[in-house]
Amino acid sequence: MRSLCSSLPTAEPGSVVTLEGWVHRRRELARVTFLVVRDRSGLAQVVLPAGTDVPPEETPIRVVGTATANAQAPGGVEVTEATVTALSEPADTPVVELWRPTLDASLPTLLDHAATTWRHPQQRAKWELAAASLRGFRSTLDDQGFTEIATPKFVESATESGANVFAVDYFGRPAYLAQSPQFYKQQLVGVFERVYEVGPVFRAEPHDTVRHLAEYVSLDVELGFIRDHRDVIACLRDTVAGMVAGIHEHAGDAVERLGITVPEVPAELPVLHFREALEIAGAPADEPDLNPGHERALGEWAMREHGSDFVVVEGYPTASRAFYSHPDPDEPHWSRSFDLLFRGLELVSGAQRLHRYADYVATLEQRGYPYEPYASYVEAFRRGIPPHGGFAIGLERWVARLVEAANIREVTLFPRDLHRLTP
Amino acid sequence: MRSLCSSLPTAEPGSVVTLEGWVHRRRELARVTFLVVRDRSGLAQVVLPAGTDVPPEETPIRVVGTATANAQAPGGVEVTEATVTALSEPADTPVVELWRPTLDASLPTLLDHAATTWRHPQQRAKWELAAASLRGFRSTLDDQGFTEIATPKFVESATESGANVFAVDYFGRPAYLAQSPQFYKQQLVGVFERVYEVGPVFRAEPHDTVRHLAEYVSLDVELGFIRDHRDVIACLRDTVAGMVAGIHEHAGDAVERLGITVPEVPAELPVLHFREALEIAGAPADEPDLNPGHERALGEWAMREHGSDFVVVEGYPTASRAFYSHPDPDEPHWSRSFDLLFRGLELVSGAQRLHRYADYVATLEQRGYPYEPYASYVEAFRRGIPPHGGFAIGLERWVARLVEAANIREVTLFPRDLHRLTP
Repeated sequence: MRSLCSSLPTAEPGSVVTLEGWVHRRRELARVTFLVVRDRSGLAQVVLPAGTDVPPEETPIRVVGTATANAQAPGGVEVTEATVTALSEPADTPVVELWRPTLDASLPTLLDHAATTWRHPQQRAKWELAAASLRGFRSTLDDQGFTEIATPKFVESATESGANVFAVDYFGRPAYLAQSPQFYKQQLVGVFERVYEVGPVFRAEPHDTVRHLAEYVSLDVELGFIRDHRDVIACLRDTVAGMVAGIHEHAGDAVERLGITVPEVPAELPVLHFREALEIAGAPADEPDLNPGHERALGEWAMREHGSDFVVVEGYPTASRAFYSHPDPDEPHWSRSFDLLFRGLELVSGAQRLHRYADYVATLEQRGYPYEPYASYVEAFRRGIPPHGGFAIGLERWVARLVEAANIREVTLFPRDLHRLTP
Repeated sequence: MRSLCSSLPTAEPGSVVTLEGWVHRRRELARVTFLVVRDRSGLAQVVLPAGTDVPPEETPIRVVGTATANAQAPGGVEVTEATVTALSEPADTPVVELWRPTLDASLPTLLDHAATTWRHPQQRAKWELAAASLRGFRSTLDDQGFTEIATPKFVESATESGANVFAVDYFGRPAYLAQSPQFYKQQLVGVFERVYEVGPVFRAEPHDTVRHLAEYVSLDVELGFIRDHRDVIACLRDTVAGMVAGIHEHAGDAVERLGITVPEVPAELPVLHFREALEIAGAPADEPDLNPGHERALGEWAMREHGSDFVVVEGYPTASRAFYSHPDPDEPHWSRSFDLLFRGLELVSGAQRLHRYADYVATLEQRGYPYEPYASYVEAFRRGIPPHGGFAIGLERWVARLVEAANIREVTLFPRDLHRLTP
């Protein structure tokens, strides 16, 4: 019966234990050989007679030995009188020394050798944050009556706009990869009222930046029977709080390994109107959007004024948002859309959407968009769709900001971008 | 404060309730108008004076009225003295009458008008089974120390074989859509030991059958430090049992609406060797694979002999399985691979995989596959990958078999196939 490394400190001293994992480090001293085993739960120390033949680092092994108290060992217990069996051929020497406390690798090395570099406990911790966030995301929404959906990635026309879309040869005719599940999640509000999807979205980003990927994981939410976008913001607040709770519950150890500060989510998120946001950021009143400098300034303001890592900006100019955004009925120049900034960076976009067929027809016409490519989507609004709205969170962006990564690629298992299609 | 329709039977008689949902049915009698409201939780009856103006069916509405006991009403409580407010324009008449107990629509109608036909409570129930299965899948694996992963859908070379792969224009160079996360989940066993992914996979199936889609949801699992494929089968058993438990826990109402029998998962799945399976199916001993007729015969055998909806066939001929399947060391003609049949249909494929670099090199050579396209994957096995295996469950196939759908498209939200790219 296998024990996890993390359970070794609770093993009965003198009992026989079986560990399985990788040779994290071997250290051959004159009188003794130390072997550190790494498994998914952590590390454990094995003490062997000097000269014992230990497979090289990163080889998977089985260790059977005796749990022995030793105040100097990590956790106070080590394994002695052990036999070590290799479970594969000896591993090649890794490109970086994974046993060092911090991973000393350039970004290209990190990415070119991802399957190896993700083994480093600190690097792995980043993805553990992502996985725990997903658990918190889903359980929050499940508890609120949402239904998980799976929408098609092959689409006949672009979701967001004609730009940045990947073309596919679909049985001899053209198709595109969905840039978001936007059109489908809105239509499914008509079926399930409240829906979410976690899945890949595809953006043919022609720019090589530290915050864009050609493929990323989008956490999409849409809910019906709302009064306005403030109901959507309230749902977003609960969702982000759930992601943070998921981290505390399932990835406390990863947080410790990284030494990061997990944000607190205020019971109510501070909300600024776009007009005020421009003022606070010191931008001209006729700016159509916020730039990264403005976002940073707003992040500082939120921390200063509200002690909050988060701030919502609502009421972006209708003209600068997606065509399905709902205008403010009193001042249609402003929209019922919003962004959530996390530590001064845009993390989430959301809005109340249009829900009346006539409004869609008018907006498409006003923007000069053709009707035909949107026909199947827009006509769904003749079938009875309630007032609704939603948002999308970029998983990698969330984790990047959590760990203050300089580049989003550092937190993506196998990133895809303009230049990178492997590994 | 909105109440769900399902909570109406527990409302205090005489209290004011607010319902939000769709006009499921309106029935204008001489003395009274009946309005049935449908929301995500169920149906509720509203009684209005004759001649009240009620929006047409499928219009989203808000109803504010008085909860009133009436033994004839569904659940014993109805809403009276109500005001009805439309929340959008009047809905167009749906292509099918959604208020009828069963959905009477041809397959093309069902699919062409999916956003409407999924509203039917019986149709919606099918997806509720899917969503509940996903919850059970994840919670089972989360509890067993698995880590959720997200692997790239853009890949440089085909996963399974060169056939049936979709080509993408990737910033001017060719790329492909992943047919499975196979290569990545195996490599990530080296990081997390136990991983799962729920996501779309893409197969350019040139055949128009009732059980194939161009895009489907794959539930992928891979685990390390196994003895052989029997450990993988044990994990599969727990996973399927968890999916069934998820249905009981979260979709009991959907099961009732559909009137289906949810299978019981035996504590140990019956396992047959491929040789025995051929014999039971009455097939010649040199058949390289099981055909649908054989699978049906084995399904009947499992029910007859073990009272089980499930049967595992292990030991398929090595030559007829994927190149990464592990041969039986004693009889390398047979592999440590398996299929799970559910009610006489293949639902899951799995195996112990090769884990030694030298075995990969030898197998590729033996099969006459070129090394280069697999280089990055195969070389990962020089970095220390323990004995491991896994499986993949097709979500739509699972649900189709649960509800005994004649065509997998009936249980797919927006199916994609050779001919269909919309809606």
